[in-house]
Amino acid sequence: MNRENAPAPNEFVMPETLTREAIAEALLPVCQILLRNEARYPWVVLVPRRAQVSEPFDLLPGDQVQLWTEIHEVGQLLKAVTGAKKINFALFGNMLPQLHVHLVARFEGDARWPGGVVGVEQRQPYPSSDIPGWWTDLTARLALKDLTSP
Amino acid sequence: MNRENAPAPNEFVMPETLTREAIAEALLPVCQILLRNEARYPWVVLVPRRAQVSEPFDLLPGDQVQLWTEIHEVGQLLKAVTGAKKINFALFGNMLPQLHVHLVARFEGDARWPGGVVGVEQRQPYPSSDIPGWWTDLTARLALKDLTSP
Repeated sequence: MNRENAPAPNEFVMPETLTREAIAEALLPVCQILLRNEARYPWVVLVPRRAQVSEPFDLLPGDQVQLWTEIHEVGQLLKAVTGAKKINFALFGNMLPQLHVHLVARFEGDARWPGGVVGVEQRQPYPSSDIPGWWTDLTARLALKDLTSP
Repeated sequence: MNRENAPAPNEFVMPETLTREAIAEALLPVCQILLRNEARYPWVVLVPRRAQVSEPFDLLPGDQVQLWTEIHEVGQLLKAVTGAKKINFALFGNMLPQLHVHLVARFEGDARWPGGVVGVEQRQPYPSSDIPGWWTDLTARLALKDLTSP
């Protein structure tokens, strides 16, 4: 890597593992939100743009509050735009140290209902990498909100 | 059920499914914390004592903040007392509507590392239902803290 282009030690760098498995993204005040390329479940990943943080309790206090604000807001909208029965939230990070949060919209009778889907099986990519309609709705509705903590 | 003993519609009732799978419990300001009877991983479940809430974003705003305060505090202590490599946090609730949060201490080389363990497999109970030392440490350290939100 060219020394001049290398990120500073405390600079956030989006892990390539996450972008490789995504087909769209959007920006929130603290998190980058990725559309995971998994056709069986509406699935987004929130990644706080903070370097060298792997546990939510390692974030600065203000970032912790903002992270949960964004998680709740995205979770609520994801449920609304997909009509899901339940949102599954998971912060695992066993394979990838950078803190990231999975939000998965679950439906009775989906491929693994009522079991867990995070860290369990191989992805099934969207057949044509077309962006699903729910993502367009979700990001449009997010753009209308002021997500900054009061 | 005797009508006089039936809980009021808005009264929290700990789901019997959760207590049946636990061998100890403690009280936090909003959550009841259960020691899950699963010998392979140090595992606790936080249950907000709020009736008819299944998604974290359905809690009242003050309860949301307190829930995450308790999750972070317990997660940090669970990591400290077990020496785990990573805490896994999961809010699924596909099988049980009452909001509950799994916190699992994970170690490189544990039974399913680096895969997910929540909602995936049958429990393996502690052989003798002895209370593990880490739980005693965890609850002793929790008791010394003021977990009320500032």
